[in-house]
Amino acid sequence: MNIAIYGYGNLGKGVYAAAKNAKDASIVGIFTRRSPESVKVPEGVAVYSANDLPAFRDKIDVLLVCGGSATDLPVLTPALAEDFNVVDSFDTHAKIPEHFDNVNKAAVKSGHIALISAGWDPGLFSLARVYASAVLPDCKDYTFWGRGISQGHSDAIRRIEGVLDARQYTVPIEEAMQAVKEGKEPTLSTREKHKRECYVVAEEGADLDRIEKEIKTMPNYFADYDTTVTFISAEELKKNHAGMPHGGSVLCTGKTGLNGENQHFIGYTLALDSNPEFTASVLLAYARAVNKMYKRGITGAKTVLDIAPSDLSPLSEEELRAHYL
Amino acid sequence: MNIAIYGYGNLGKGVYAAAKNAKDASIVGIFTRRSPESVKVPEGVAVYSANDLPAFRDKIDVLLVCGGSATDLPVLTPALAEDFNVVDSFDTHAKIPEHFDNVNKAAVKSGHIALISAGWDPGLFSLARVYASAVLPDCKDYTFWGRGISQGHSDAIRRIEGVLDARQYTVPIEEAMQAVKEGKEPTLSTREKHKRECYVVAEEGADLDRIEKEIKTMPNYFADYDTTVTFISAEELKKNHAGMPHGGSVLCTGKTGLNGENQHFIGYTLALDSNPEFTASVLLAYARAVNKMYKRGITGAKTVLDIAPSDLSPLSEEELRAHYL
Repeated sequence: MNIAIYGYGNLGKGVYAAAKNAKDASIVGIFTRRSPESVKVPEGVAVYSANDLPAFRDKIDVLLVCGGSATDLPVLTPALAEDFNVVDSFDTHAKIPEHFDNVNKAAVKSGHIALISAGWDPGLFSLARVYASAVLPDCKDYTFWGRGISQGHSDAIRRIEGVLDARQYTVPIEEAMQAVKEGKEPTLSTREKHKRECYVVAEEGADLDRIEKEIKTMPNYFADYDTTVTFISAEELKKNHAGMPHGGSVLCTGKTGLNGENQHFIGYTLALDSNPEFTASVLLAYARAVNKMYKRGITGAKTVLDIAPSDLSPLSEEELRAHYL
Repeated sequence: MNIAIYGYGNLGKGVYAAAKNAKDASIVGIFTRRSPESVKVPEGVAVYSANDLPAFRDKIDVLLVCGGSATDLPVLTPALAEDFNVVDSFDTHAKIPEHFDNVNKAAVKSGHIALISAGWDPGLFSLARVYASAVLPDCKDYTFWGRGISQGHSDAIRRIEGVLDARQYTVPIEEAMQAVKEGKEPTLSTREKHKRECYVVAEEGADLDRIEKEIKTMPNYFADYDTTVTFISAEELKKNHAGMPHGGSVLCTGKTGLNGENQHFIGYTLALDSNPEFTASVLLAYARAVNKMYKRGITGAKTVLDIAPSDLSPLSEEELRAHYL
């Protein structure tokens, strides 16, 4: 399949690497809203202006849209679905139904497929939740995130006066996960599920007490959590906190039997060295499915819940049945 | 949907319980090859002879075939697919392609859907393997089973002279699982992955040394494993080993990045109090999908790899997108 990448931030770079390593994908090019000359890409890959996209209509099987969920994707994905099969990673859970409807209108009208909200949450974690609740309809599911870097929380700290740089780790609380695994079906407050660890580089002479207090009392981001703040040097941040690890678990327990006498646990866990590279790999797998389904005449907006697993694999259905089933 | 159950052993009983608890299933009846009067079922449920099935052609949306993989299902599933949409739990991995082809011929010809090999392995574990390998094409996957009762191994012990009853637990080796989780991609022999614990009730005066030796040296079943044999009383077996727990994990590690510089772990774990009841719950979820897909005009043999997750859920696509994605 011929894929193209729209946007070349962390996610776009991850898609490039995943496609480069895939045996069944070739990269038509990287499309950018910046000036193409200003985008640093690996040798041998073409960079085009996003304005040139219409000329590539017949050359791209699937366009992977690598933009932010806050302002980029709500506009980009419906617009691009007018000309291309697209995959995006829209991850604002509460706005997925609205985004789906907007994208669906465009994709149905143009006769393309637009797969939204690929990645791991939403994405693989959504699959874990849906499979578990389909098998055990009354199960209780819990999602824990981390230990991993939250970009949004790191950004929030960086906006505080006197802060030069920061990394925030979301950390699941072990005792809470253990209680879920043991089938106790606990009711957990926000504070009981996760804690937040902040590593902050402050300006010289900055009021560290004020910064720490501003972080810990920040509404929505930190106020509802047990938060630790550690001030470190720029060198230490670069040395020990440069990566973008993340992950988490979807844990479910449910009962079977005429009187619910037997209990079952279903757990799905990810531990990722690089959040954007893994997310990108999920996007590429769904691009593969989009390409296959488009050839079957399927159109409209889709999510990971609509895609049969075999369509994600580069292997044939026969190979999958023989070796993976 | 109107379901019927063919065969009323442990799995059939599990399907009955799952359907009874499901809001979207009603049970047309239990069909048996035994004399219907001899089958003990909960009050209010109809039991019919398997010979009477043709009369129920228009009354059953999906027939769940609850027979053994060794001799029952290879014959039953293709035959029943001539008249019904069917779901089975065929679990002889090596013979799945052959079973699929036989069932597919019957189902295509009759215009029904036949979903084979539902359950957890094959089944949910297959899904975990395929999703992981689609996202990380060069990942290495490991399947560990247990701690849980293996019916086949328990039966093998029971066939030894002087043995009255037995339960065999398959136990994954913790160190091996840990090495996989740490991304070491170890090469593991059969012995390094699992051990076997046997609880045996012997006849009075039986030669316990001979029995233990016969178990430990039994080819295929025990010879390649570290096996422990514990002789217990019939009462102790009944008290402590009456359940049918099982479970296990599919663990995968793979790399991303242009030079494979980042590593990722994907783990899927089940811990089940009742293997047959959980398996039955998976079968019922797939019966739901079969019923939906049949109404869309889809026919032929299918496996869990061919089914979109949303089709398994009793919830609408809108509800799933809003609350589970």
